[in-house]
Amino acid sequence: VKLIGMLDSPYVRRVAICMKLAKLDFEHEATSVFRHYDAFRQINPVVKAPTLVLDDGQSLMDSTLILGYLGLLEGAGERLRSFRLTALALAACEKSVQIIYERNLRPVEKQHQPWVDRVHQQLSAAYGELEAALAAQPFSDDPASLSQAAVTVAVSWHFTQRMLPEVVVARDHPGLAAFSAHAERLPVFLATPHG
Amino acid sequence: VKLIGMLDSPYVRRVAICMKLAKLDFEHEATSVFRHYDAFRQINPVVKAPTLVLDDGQSLMDSTLILGYLGLLEGAGERLRSFRLTALALAACEKSVQIIYERNLRPVEKQHQPWVDRVHQQLSAAYGELEAALAAQPFSDDPASLSQAAVTVAVSWHFTQRMLPEVVVARDHPGLAAFSAHAERLPVFLATPHG
Repeated sequence: VKLIGMLDSPYVRRVAICMKLAKLDFEHEATSVFRHYDAFRQINPVVKAPTLVLDDGQSLMDSTLILGYLGLLEGAGERLRSFRLTALALAACEKSVQIIYERNLRPVEKQHQPWVDRVHQQLSAAYGELEAALAAQPFSDDPASLSQAAVTVAVSWHFTQRMLPEVVVARDHPGLAAFSAHAERLPVFLATPHG
Repeated sequence: VKLIGMLDSPYVRRVAICMKLAKLDFEHEATSVFRHYDAFRQINPVVKAPTLVLDDGQSLMDSTLILGYLGLLEGAGERLRSFRLTALALAACEKSVQIIYERNLRPVEKQHQPWVDRVHQQLSAAYGELEAALAAQPFSDDPASLSQAAVTVAVSWHFTQRMLPEVVVARDHPGLAAFSAHAERLPVFLATPHG
């Protein structure tokens, strides 16, 4: 199978890392929904990353549905907590992407501050909830028990810190910053770098 | 449990219909992420619909993760086809919402046509793929075998037709239009109307 998309997308990166942790064989194609729009369109006309292309040519998109299809969505642990943390991290990714798109995909005179303010508040709330959840019950530090939720939280935080470090301040989120630093030093994260 | 959000959101409506089909008891609270932002924030600080509030007060968001938590994501049928159609319908919802937000959440002088054109092309591609998939293999007309994917496709199509009828033209998508018309006449759809 092929995983299509750039690793500077947290959605692509979470799938890639979870597939590697599960020792699923795949080929990664770093095709960009922006720089290689026409090439991406040949693979998936909806032009959304990640896209998983199966050996029979059928394709599947949406990182959560891809992980679900591969049987990687649910860990051995508590399903509600796992899904809650995943949803918070995905909301944080979405709100980060909305701010990045507002800044990068439209000229300054088309940017709309009330929209950015709203999204910023939602983004801060998502990371605030995640920080509180990790303070109450940290992720295991054992690389062998790295869950899908932990991967998604780590990838999300790293993405936002790389792209919007002044928007979500690391020193206000010591639990997330520490877990991210731990995760980004693991071989599977180092082998699947952002960007 | 409580399901929070307005039924004019296709994400809320798909969860509500799937929960009713599964005969899960829930209370629906029609709280809007726009008109009741502060009230929504008290329930879920990230302010995203749908939010599912469990009896112990814990909350979960993201329609796909809610359905997964409730065990309603996978039907008895073919998982890949089900997830492919779900992903296409969710992409169509997302692209519809992006066009609606562009029109409704920012003044005309802040709207950016190249962005709208890109999203419009993605939206058309998603419905084109769905139309082709239904032409190759229609959904069952038997209300007793209505799958999560079929609900999501029907809700998505109805949403786009209600909100953007001139953007995605019904006569170009006869399979989707016919299945949607069938679904919207079913008691569970009539009892869970858009808006």
